[in-house]
Amino acid sequence: VNIAVDAVGGDHGPDVVVPGAIAGARRAGVGLILTGPEAVVRAALAGVDVSGVAIEVIEAPETIAMDDHPAQAVRRKPRSSIVVGMNAVKEGRAAALVSAGNSGAVMAAALMVLGRIPGIDRPAIAGFIPTRTGRCLLLDLGAVTDPRPQHLVQFAQMGSLFVAQALGVERPTVGLLSNGEEAAKGNNLVRETYPLLAAAPGVNFAGNVEGKDITRGVVDVVVTDGFTGNVALKVAEGVATFVGDLLRAEVTATLPRKLAALLLRPAFRAARARMDYAETGGAPLLGVNGTVIIAHGRSNETAIANAVVVAGQSAERDLAPAIAALVAGSGNSTLPPEPASSVG
Amino acid sequence: VNIAVDAVGGDHGPDVVVPGAIAGARRAGVGLILTGPEAVVRAALAGVDVSGVAIEVIEAPETIAMDDHPAQAVRRKPRSSIVVGMNAVKEGRAAALVSAGNSGAVMAAALMVLGRIPGIDRPAIAGFIPTRTGRCLLLDLGAVTDPRPQHLVQFAQMGSLFVAQALGVERPTVGLLSNGEEAAKGNNLVRETYPLLAAAPGVNFAGNVEGKDITRGVVDVVVTDGFTGNVALKVAEGVATFVGDLLRAEVTATLPRKLAALLLRPAFRAARARMDYAETGGAPLLGVNGTVIIAHGRSNETAIANAVVVAGQSAERDLAPAIAALVAGSGNSTLPPEPASSVG
Repeated sequence: VNIAVDAVGGDHGPDVVVPGAIAGARRAGVGLILTGPEAVVRAALAGVDVSGVAIEVIEAPETIAMDDHPAQAVRRKPRSSIVVGMNAVKEGRAAALVSAGNSGAVMAAALMVLGRIPGIDRPAIAGFIPTRTGRCLLLDLGAVTDPRPQHLVQFAQMGSLFVAQALGVERPTVGLLSNGEEAAKGNNLVRETYPLLAAAPGVNFAGNVEGKDITRGVVDVVVTDGFTGNVALKVAEGVATFVGDLLRAEVTATLPRKLAALLLRPAFRAARARMDYAETGGAPLLGVNGTVIIAHGRSNETAIANAVVVAGQSAERDLAPAIAALVAGSGNSTLPPEPASSVG
Repeated sequence: VNIAVDAVGGDHGPDVVVPGAIAGARRAGVGLILTGPEAVVRAALAGVDVSGVAIEVIEAPETIAMDDHPAQAVRRKPRSSIVVGMNAVKEGRAAALVSAGNSGAVMAAALMVLGRIPGIDRPAIAGFIPTRTGRCLLLDLGAVTDPRPQHLVQFAQMGSLFVAQALGVERPTVGLLSNGEEAAKGNNLVRETYPLLAAAPGVNFAGNVEGKDITRGVVDVVVTDGFTGNVALKVAEGVATFVGDLLRAEVTATLPRKLAALLLRPAFRAARARMDYAETGGAPLLGVNGTVIIAHGRSNETAIANAVVVAGQSAERDLAPAIAALVAGSGNSTLPPEPASSVG
């Protein structure tokens, strides 16, 4: 099995992505297909220990920048690292693509090259959040900023199948993110979605959950629109970083504290590892015909390595047939196709 | 100056609210008007040191429960602690009301008894969030779950005036919460609001901000709809609690760690105090004719005390004339009145 990796995507560029990808491929026991300008990729490979990892480089001379318009960039740059990688998935040369590049462009390329799973109106980005009891899948994280209720139902169905297979959870519980637990709470979208989720096949609906319930681990899957999901994820990252920084400032404020803090370094490290959003790997794009993992633009080597491992596992599971079967049984594929708002 | 306090509101009841209110009144140098069933309030007062605080109890035999329908409860229970307290504000007997009770009922009572400031279509709940650089005002926290763009503009104007007066910040910067910094990012509401905020009088607009930017303290005011604001606040609370609990588990996992942790107790305490959302006091309801502070249902004594202090300060400032003048100058009071969705 080969995993394609966009070697030039992300804020840190190939010198971080390439070693990260190799570490991940070695851990997952997969081969790598690196896409990007060949000279740049080869330069990043120089001096990296590649032993035990089969590596192929596919030339992709064009670059999609982080602030390029997603759909336009994908159409105008067919030889970009993202589109070339997506084609490798389409052609079966790679089992999955990992990219830390322009996430809108990754989504647009996935829609154009791989297409949607039959019955799915809008793909969603899903990500695991660390919780008190383990982890919880939050979706959508930004693919669909103004979904209809029926889209949220499909997100719940896809998220349930993903968690069932990824974590081995039987009938994972699904919460609808809201501003209160009562069924009458929520904005218009949430109030319209609630009864649909309660009746949806393949969804073990647990009702509304609040923002504080995500880290409490009260449900396995939390469903929300891509705008709120993106804000929630970034607030969580921001607060975790803020608390860590505050604490670091306090425990190093005096010499005695510094000495005591030295003794607690393993404890701090263990707590940070539990909280570290980089540790949880990339976010799968659910609902397209193929395995695509969107890594954070700020991904470090560890995050890229984890994303490659997640890509290998996800490709092995291939959820597409199960998703297609579930939504076909729901009879909810009746909406006309429309362009994704963050992508178009 | 007297501050009215709903003595029976909140999850912990009068035995927490009453001593908290007294502590706050003593600190702020104000008198207290406690509303609730007189026997219950008197019982909570017994054994509490009330020296130096002038206390009046106003009989309010009816109780609005946390899960009562807000507007119905306010109409049917005119002798409830919330409505009696609101009337005390209306009549000028109290300069402000603090309640940790049913927040929807507090909003409904404020609208019915005090009314809106001329030109304001929808009042908003505002709250301070601790940040790297101090604190930031986030609004709306749940009063208006499906606002129109013009409502967000009014939130920005009210929030700017509040922060300018409360923190002495000149021309506070305002960010619009979104899923990306670029002007084209956001859901439909955010994209429609962006140009209005850029042109709004009294708003020093800094563009879109992401969830992680709130705790980074990049702006003084963050504006969002009440659904997203509520989720963001509760995610922040949840993550802060989660990180604290994780850390506590790690630093007490072994005896040597426990001993080192003892030395660091002051450091932990200082970090927790910076993060503690209870320390920041209640959330003002901006846009009504009078000062109303909504305290968290789970408020402990410290939180209630802080809310009373905030109430005293807010009442002194009386923002209503400045708000009315600013929105009149904006010519944006042209929308027909409509009931608040979380309240109706």
